[in-house]
Amino acid sequence: MSSPRKISDSTVRRLSSYLRTLDSLRARGHDTVSSVHLAAAGGLTPAQVRKDLSFFGSFGVRGRGYDVHVLRGEIARILGLDRKWSTVVVGAGRLGSALASYPRFSRQGFRIVALFDNDSERLGTRIGDAEILPATELESYVRQHEVSFGILTTPASAAQETADRLVAGGIRGILNFTPTVPEVPETVHLRNVNLTIELEGLSFAIREAEIREGPQEGESD
Amino acid sequence: MSSPRKISDSTVRRLSSYLRTLDSLRARGHDTVSSVHLAAAGGLTPAQVRKDLSFFGSFGVRGRGYDVHVLRGEIARILGLDRKWSTVVVGAGRLGSALASYPRFSRQGFRIVALFDNDSERLGTRIGDAEILPATELESYVRQHEVSFGILTTPASAAQETADRLVAGGIRGILNFTPTVPEVPETVHLRNVNLTIELEGLSFAIREAEIREGPQEGESD
Repeated sequence: MSSPRKISDSTVRRLSSYLRTLDSLRARGHDTVSSVHLAAAGGLTPAQVRKDLSFFGSFGVRGRGYDVHVLRGEIARILGLDRKWSTVVVGAGRLGSALASYPRFSRQGFRIVALFDNDSERLGTRIGDAEILPATELESYVRQHEVSFGILTTPASAAQETADRLVAGGIRGILNFTPTVPEVPETVHLRNVNLTIELEGLSFAIREAEIREGPQEGESD
Repeated sequence: MSSPRKISDSTVRRLSSYLRTLDSLRARGHDTVSSVHLAAAGGLTPAQVRKDLSFFGSFGVRGRGYDVHVLRGEIARILGLDRKWSTVVVGAGRLGSALASYPRFSRQGFRIVALFDNDSERLGTRIGDAEILPATELESYVRQHEVSFGILTTPASAAQETADRLVAGGIRGILNFTPTVPEVPETVHLRNVNLTIELEGLSFAIREAEIREGPQEGESD
């Protein structure tokens, strides 16, 4: 918090959230946006928004706000979204297929170039533009096509082996949806996604509200 | 940060992460865990772990660590996971179907009781134990079955109308995977999931590493 150079994970999350709001404003033809609007859309305070954006050298014009297009471009550049990132999905089950066809990935520059699976019945099928290939080809494919990111949706038992293959092929980042955390070298960036965490946030919030409000009457009739 | 009563979203996230680690330890037959291990699994400092857990009244035994089963039970209770939450998925496309069959949801008490969709070709199909029902029945189903949570995976254009139906049926929380943010009354808890955010975290990290290391040579051979 005291180091001016280190950008925290929560700052990156807020930048992603601003980007989303700016995309939606752009789509609706807006050219300017206030810190108040950006704050409201992200559940933040305007002061937090102004602090974040000044940190990145972007200043609004008083009474007029930020230029939607300029600000969007700046945040996209900071997040590394001003280029294309070749991405593979490993595990072509329900979740893998859903992620491979998630439209916002490609819109932000994450191009799904192939899926990989062990199940021979799935091979050759296409999800969007990407073909399902045999998992045995993973390492050579990643190397040959200079794939940057691997999205891991295999069963937990295959996670480490798959991560090893991605690393051997020269992958730069892994987005892990499996419930285990594979070990990767320090040079490879790993992020673990926990889909349950948000539902747990909801159940936590409801439990807290109940405690605040006291015991509820049972609905007996 | 200064208020002792308010539990921040990031604390809830860390609790979810501890729970995950404890589940995996329990599955491997471990009975105790150190704050150092819990910290390493979540990418945190042991001091942070001890602070979080003392905050909730749970103290480890010096030299022995925390009891895995007791700690797991406490965190589950705090997160509201000591009961079953009936949950519906609205939108039975690839993402909705993947989420409806995501095994960890039911393991944590989020029981998917039904899916809803407008597409008549999907109706009657089962995903796991849950049937796909017509979206027109959403409100009455939620009311009749006292459904707690709705997971929203419809197209953006249907998000607000779907949220309205869930609210009219008496839903308590909505987990929104659509790119728009529907308006809901204050009494309904809403969480918005951004699947792109984690990939953006990866591209940001790689861009930062490149800046630190200076320009890379092109791979020209």
